Amino acid sequence: MNFTKTLALGAALTALPVAAFAQDAPAPGFDEIGPYIMTTLLFLVGGFLVFWMAAGFAMLEAGLVRSKNVTTQLTKNMALFSIAAIMYWLVGFGVMYPAEWSIEGYLGPLFAVTSLEPVGLAAEDAALDYASAASDFFFQLMFCATTASIVSGTLAERIKLWPFLIFVVALTGFIYPIEASWQWGGGWLSEAGFSDFAGSTLVHAAGGFAALAGAIILGPRIGKYTKDGKVVPMPGSNLALATLGTFILWLGWFGFNGGSQLAAGTVGDITDVGRIFANTNMAASAGAVAALILTQVLYKKVDLTMVLNGALAGLVSITAGPLDPSLFGALWIGAVGGAIVVFTVPMLDKMKIDDVVGAIPVHLIAGFWGTLVVPVYTDGTSFATQILGFAAIGAFVFITSLIIWVILKATMGIRVSEEAEITGLDMSELGMEAYPEFSKG
Amino acid sequence: MNFTKTLALGAALTALPVAAFAQDAPAPGFDEIGPYIMTTLLFLVGGFLVFWMAAGFAMLEAGLVRSKNVTTQLTKNMALFSIAAIMYWLVGFGVMYPAEWSIEGYLGPLFAVTSLEPVGLAAEDAALDYASAASDFFFQLMFCATTASIVSGTLAERIKLWPFLIFVVALTGFIYPIEASWQWGGGWLSEAGFSDFAGSTLVHAAGGFAALAGAIILGPRIGKYTKDGKVVPMPGSNLALATLGTFILWLGWFGFNGGSQLAAGTVGDITDVGRIFANTNMAASAGAVAALILTQVLYKKVDLTMVLNGALAGLVSITAGPLDPSLFGALWIGAVGGAIVVFTVPMLDKMKIDDVVGAIPVHLIAGFWGTLVVPVYTDGTSFATQILGFAAIGAFVFITSLIIWVILKATMGIRVSEEAEITGLDMSELGMEAYPEFSKG
Amino acid sequence: MNFTKTLALGAALTALPVAAFAQDAPAPGFDEIGPYIMTTLLFLVGGFLVFWMAAGFAMLEAGLVRSKNVTTQLTKNMALFSIAAIMYWLVGFGVMYPAEWSIEGYLGPLFAVTSLEPVGLAAEDAALDYASAASDFFFQLMFCATTASIVSGTLAERIKLWPFLIFVVALTGFIYPIEASWQWGGGWLSEAGFSDFAGSTLVHAAGGFAALAGAIILGPRIGKYTKDGKVVPMPGSNLALATLGTFILWLGWFGFNGGSQLAAGTVGDITDVGRIFANTNMAASAGAVAALILTQVLYKKVDLTMVLNGALAGLVSITAGPLDPSLFGALWIGAVGGAIVVFTVPMLDKMKIDDVVGAIPVHLIAGFWGTLVVPVYTDGTSFATQILGFAAIGAFVFITSLIIWVILKATMGIRVSEEAEITGLDMSELGMEAYPEFSKG
Repeated sequence: MNFTKTLALGAALTALPVAAFAQDAPAPGFDEIGPYIMTTLLFLVGGFLVFWMAAGFAMLEAGLVRSKNVTTQLTKNMALFSIAAIMYWLVGFGVMYPAEWSIEGYLGPLFAVTSLEPVGLAAEDAALDYASAASDFFFQLMFCATTASIVSGTLAERIKLWPFLIFVVALTGFIYPIEASWQWGGGWLSEAGFSDFAGSTLVHAAGGFAALAGAIILGPRIGKYTKDGKVVPMPGSNLALATLGTFILWLGWFGFNGGSQLAAGTVGDITDVGRIFANTNMAASAGAVAALILTQVLYKKVDLTMVLNGALAGLVSITAGPLDPSLFGALWIGAVGGAIVVFTVPMLDKMKIDDVVGAIPVHLIAGFWGTLVVPVYTDGTSFATQILGFAAIGAFVFITSLIIWVILKATMGIRVSEEAEITGLDMSELGMEAYPEFSKG
Repeated sequence: MNFTKTLALGAALTALPVAAFAQDAPAPGFDEIGPYIMTTLLFLVGGFLVFWMAAGFAMLEAGLVRSKNVTTQLTKNMALFSIAAIMYWLVGFGVMYPAEWSIEGYLGPLFAVTSLEPVGLAAEDAALDYASAASDFFFQLMFCATTASIVSGTLAERIKLWPFLIFVVALTGFIYPIEASWQWGGGWLSEAGFSDFAGSTLVHAAGGFAALAGAIILGPRIGKYTKDGKVVPMPGSNLALATLGTFILWLGWFGFNGGSQLAAGTVGDITDVGRIFANTNMAASAGAVAALILTQVLYKKVDLTMVLNGALAGLVSITAGPLDPSLFGALWIGAVGGAIVVFTVPMLDKMKIDDVVGAIPVHLIAGFWGTLVVPVYTDGTSFATQILGFAAIGAFVFITSLIIWVILKATMGIRVSEEAEITGLDMSELGMEAYPEFSKG
Repeated sequence: MNFTKTLALGAALTALPVAAFAQDAPAPGFDEIGPYIMTTLLFLVGGFLVFWMAAGFAMLEAGLVRSKNVTTQLTKNMALFSIAAIMYWLVGFGVMYPAEWSIEGYLGPLFAVTSLEPVGLAAEDAALDYASAASDFFFQLMFCATTASIVSGTLAERIKLWPFLIFVVALTGFIYPIEASWQWGGGWLSEAGFSDFAGSTLVHAAGGFAALAGAIILGPRIGKYTKDGKVVPMPGSNLALATLGTFILWLGWFGFNGGSQLAAGTVGDITDVGRIFANTNMAASAGAVAALILTQVLYKKVDLTMVLNGALAGLVSITAGPLDPSLFGALWIGAVGGAIVVFTVPMLDKMKIDDVVGAIPVHLIAGFWGTLVVPVYTDGTSFATQILGFAAIGAFVFITSLIIWVILKATMGIRVSEEAEITGLDMSELGMEAYPEFSKG
């Protein structure tokens, strides 16, 4: 996302009406309102596609945990999205875009309740060179929720429900909006020349860092790592769901990256959205194929969960710069993303960081890769600044998350009892099984 | 939906061509055709999103019934949508909008076969201030099908397939189109000042009333209520599917409410669609969070099925007026909807009305709430008229449905045998299990 | 798809700029760019809907195979889509549309690497009477992938992973693009007057012929046909997934057929897209209802898998001509499609051609029906030419596929060992179960 487009709205609200629509002027024609309508539509379609990613994370994670923890994982995903929607309205949007929007709803630095335009907005009062504030809020909200979705997979099968949801409140109301404002809100990183088109760092790596902090404080699942250093596989209970979740995420990503063009009302903009769709699809495909081939070569057997995560890593990798690369660029950037997953999933296990669904390799490490590679295709960017931006956001999210996890651990506790964990969180925490009739083998 | 917009088409068909396009005039420019194209696009995108809700109901219901009835539930959902599509073409659309469309296809009061515009419609012959009739038919058809989807969940696990499908014929061909014509067809309720933007009453409560009538005639499942008044839980077989269904419905609802703006070609209209998307999302989120907190407080354990139904109740609650409330308005309207579910699901059980998936609390009761609360934010509406409209439609749908259920019961019977019910409808009615390989615990 | 629209681009690239935009001319207004933007949007929305069909095939097939082969089926679907995306870029698109696109990337007859337009394309350089090349590539790619998706279901439960994927390379890089170029690339079939709007023959029957060739070479599953000629039912493991897959395909088909209008920027075009949506939905509904009634009448029990395949056959049947029929036309064309499935699924079994998911009846036979029936509603077409086109494409795809299958069989082998087949491909080929915890009954 290009913050300057977002910033243009402030100016538009002030400057437009007087000059453009003198008294008794005819209603503005499609030349004037067409771009506004198209960009608003882009946000609405892009937004519902990114909303759909919430379902994708829910299915992916429900498929990759053991059946005794599925209800809990589903509950967390429903709840985290809903909490994100409320927190981003109550605080986040105003914190992220301090220069605009939210004017009448602004209640100070901590609460910046978002308001929408009036019903039946007149063309004279609209930000005709941008889009409807409501549609922009709707679209941006989905990115905030995505960041939280990333965290829930890593910490599955052992975290208590409510501390997790309190962390979501902090992440979606404060941590994400603050770091995202550095770039998309026109803050210091954007001024420094950092480039992160749709959020390889701002969304994906940020979610990954919050998850990493949680995984370190929380510790691995009982029995995951034996004393003699072996890793015990704990296979997911439903790979059909996991595959469905991956397809959902892939679909939603067209909205995630395409909508981040933030404009669709000119030939250049809509063509760019087309480029982004094509590149996004190519990177995902290349990530999947890379993981397919690599697991065959390395392990002599294709590993479906690696192929799924390879596709997702390809998507994360192209997200920092989905517009500028050629299709060949998208291919190799995505393929490296897929390879990253194959090599870093075991690495994490060696460090005894227990990431149930592989979210840290997919979102944090491939997110770094995607951010780093931007200057290869995008003029005016530099590796140094890309590293700086990644490091700054990573440090901020990791440290603030760590502090919150430590406080939650010290106060209410974040981990279920050993007995509850062995029984499964569904029965111990919620008293409700996801598949009550299917006997366990 | 605003019926006046729909009605405008009649006028447009008569008045437009002559004035706007004199002989030898150049082809109309985007100023003239842009709104038509955008509104048609809104109907197509909105329509496919509402179509997707049919899948949502199928998954929600398949997840909430026991595994021995899953195939039957899936079959009913596939069949009811298909029947609705045919009946709404054969009768419904013409009955619902008697003033327009269907002109050449109209065969009298009972059959009003819908025709589409000719291929390659010329701009001069189009309803340029509205949209393509085909797209409107496509969009409206989905609402009719949704009404039928609501019924199938309540009556699950004990109703015979064919009597249910015959009821669907009556509901989608006659009952729904008649009551919907009172409001959206420009009938007496719209003239009385009733307001139901996207159908809290016309679709959701109507479906709920049809389901309630069926549940009363059909009676509860064997063993659901013991003689000493206890309610026996019969947990759903697959909560991952139920959650997926809820996410699908949530996604589809953006089309349901957003498309009901019935216009997208002006700054005011597209901005309004944005408002509706944002409010719809907020109401769903608030409904989910309300159910999350309430079940924790009341039962000390979060109940996922209540959270799912809470989100859906939030959606139903905002559907009568998704445009006018502020985001804060959507929040509290949706939250009350979520609370309604938590309190009325047990109430229904006390009345021994066996609603397998909770469709009556979600669609009928939250539908009442959503209809009632409209005057708080919408000028020109009154509580009295809202109650009148709800009561009129409720009485009509309930009584006609009751009559049909009674006739079906008296003639072909509507309930499977006791033995068949205990065995499960899948084996007894269809001879086909949904999960033949998973042994039952 | 109308190839002449695609061909128009070549002319546009040459002829437009000079005449339309003299030096110092003002930026073109929405009259000039509106159609380009709308058609590009149609390709993007249509494209993501057809992408979604890849998930539909994955779920349908995962639901219809036995649980011991689910992981393999999911892997094949993820991999085939990804391979198609790469091959269509590397070879396919350039082969299919030799007259246009790909200019700078063209490396000779076998490799025609596709390039996209530059970032921020100026209106003067755009094909203003068509759409963005990137969006067209994105849309067309999905059709190529769909062709491959059709093959994987038929050959399930016994084929080796890698030979299948090598076949996909050939199909998506060469076989599909070559036969599709005959019609949509402006080749000899289009000149002969063949008509296949969205691909009943070019996509669906082609996929069906490739699957048929494979099924013949591969042979039936062990135990499927007994020596005394009985057919042993091997029921699918998860009908909820299969139903979900069908709903996904139905949804995606709106993009498949609607997007094939290839234009959305005039009143006539967007209205036609509306017609196509309405007809597509009607044909699917009629196919489902036909199978519902027929299985009840013939077998005294409704068969859900037939209803699902009936809906899909209805969709395939309308795909060759979704624009011209009336809604009644779509009804009977789709209903015949549904009936075809009910009658030809057992026929195929009698021929001992083992088609695990029924893809050959649905895609090949209903594809023939859909192609054949076009002249009833579409002027300028003839039954003879329709049969000619179907036969030509069928022969080409069948023979080339047969050759490749034979070569693969002779070299690396295409079938797993008897032991591996009985164990299930998931454990024998991949070492990973889809539902490891659910004990098998």
